[in-house]
Amino acid sequence: MISVNILGAGNVATHLFKAFQKSENISVNQWYNRDISKISTYKNEVSTIDNISLLEEADIYIIAVSDDAISKLSQSLTNKNQLVVHTSGSVSVYDLDKTLRRGVFYPLQTFSKTASVDFSNVPFCIETIDKQDLELLKNLANAIGSQWYKISTEQRQTLHLSAVFVNNFTNQLYRIAHEISDIQNINFDILKPLILETANKVQHMSPYMAQTGPAMRNDKKTIKKHLKSLENEQHKAIYKLLTESIKKTHGR
Amino acid sequence: MISVNILGAGNVATHLFKAFQKSENISVNQWYNRDISKISTYKNEVSTIDNISLLEEADIYIIAVSDDAISKLSQSLTNKNQLVVHTSGSVSVYDLDKTLRRGVFYPLQTFSKTASVDFSNVPFCIETIDKQDLELLKNLANAIGSQWYKISTEQRQTLHLSAVFVNNFTNQLYRIAHEISDIQNINFDILKPLILETANKVQHMSPYMAQTGPAMRNDKKTIKKHLKSLENEQHKAIYKLLTESIKKTHGR
Repeated sequence: MISVNILGAGNVATHLFKAFQKSENISVNQWYNRDISKISTYKNEVSTIDNISLLEEADIYIIAVSDDAISKLSQSLTNKNQLVVHTSGSVSVYDLDKTLRRGVFYPLQTFSKTASVDFSNVPFCIETIDKQDLELLKNLANAIGSQWYKISTEQRQTLHLSAVFVNNFTNQLYRIAHEISDIQNINFDILKPLILETANKVQHMSPYMAQTGPAMRNDKKTIKKHLKSLENEQHKAIYKLLTESIKKTHGR
Repeated sequence: MISVNILGAGNVATHLFKAFQKSENISVNQWYNRDISKISTYKNEVSTIDNISLLEEADIYIIAVSDDAISKLSQSLTNKNQLVVHTSGSVSVYDLDKTLRRGVFYPLQTFSKTASVDFSNVPFCIETIDKQDLELLKNLANAIGSQWYKISTEQRQTLHLSAVFVNNFTNQLYRIAHEISDIQNINFDILKPLILETANKVQHMSPYMAQTGPAMRNDKKTIKKHLKSLENEQHKAIYKLLTESIKKTHGR
């Protein structure tokens, strides 16, 4: 049995709490948040506290607060026996107070407030200063059915950047398609199967191999037609730049 | 029973042939291609021909050739009783020879040569000059288990452009993430669940509502850090432009 204390009340903290509660191999001892009202919904399931000095021992403290608050919060921890991890993609493991046993437990996934999370689809990037602590984080990931990867701080920061491309930027391309098709009164539902298949394809094929379309074929006629029909200058610039990028990748 | 003749031997022609063969309500009478060797694999399943004057009557002729070849091929059709449709996203229905009963049967999906296609995930954009012919295309889509949408030529061209954004450009963002993570010896598998979830999210939520990340929050510190770590100038330009686009969409 792994005992855990959670610090913070955002999406990651809340989804982790729910997953830990479901696991037979994890017990959540305490849940701390500065503003206790944000976790009061769960007060019958777990000991909720807003006074950090009341934190008791546990195998792992999980700091799931905003990036800027991690370092300072770690400095206020007085118990020195537990492993203390943060869940951020971009903060270094060394930003945690150096008197602590330190590590990182970063879930590489997008979380909504409302939708429930299937943790079998959430890979964790794990890192510890002390090699011996790695086992504990592996077991924690396993206990909620998640994959884990041993990832250094530098690699994690690169993954965080890559995630911006495949998640935020990709989502913005969906948004642009939505805008363009709205103008012509086209139901966005028509594009949904293509969106899904595009993501499915690279599950078993490299993005390089999966590429198709006018840029890939250097089909100048279609590219010109598309650029002419785009009215929004920013959309035009995005079309041009990504077309150039595809042509460069494929030596066109 | 709907009788069909297929013209062309590319991905769309081949996948349609296979789907039609499986359907109880469709019979493929003839399959024409200029170069008969490309369809000879199927000569025991269907009458294959390379002489266009041998085409016999059928309810629908499906022209699934490259965009540039559609108009000319339609001019060589001498039987005038069947509905003639092309399967292109960007060619106008009026590009088909005007002496014919004309229409469009455009599958909005990405096809691989090798992978088999589940047509329940392929929406068809259908259009006919004569309203009465619409029913025939609806029935054809239904007979292979596909959704259909009544879409004008102008709307279809917009959808084709939108498809470039959600398919080709999105795939290029996956490719860039692959490149960036390769430099740090990161297994691309770690990003696959996020890619899938990003596509899943917009199946039941608008891309506008689904957006998260540093650009959305206007988190200048992270944006600056990311730009600094990108070495490739083109990747940097794409990061900047899509960040600006997200900020504009969300009024940041």
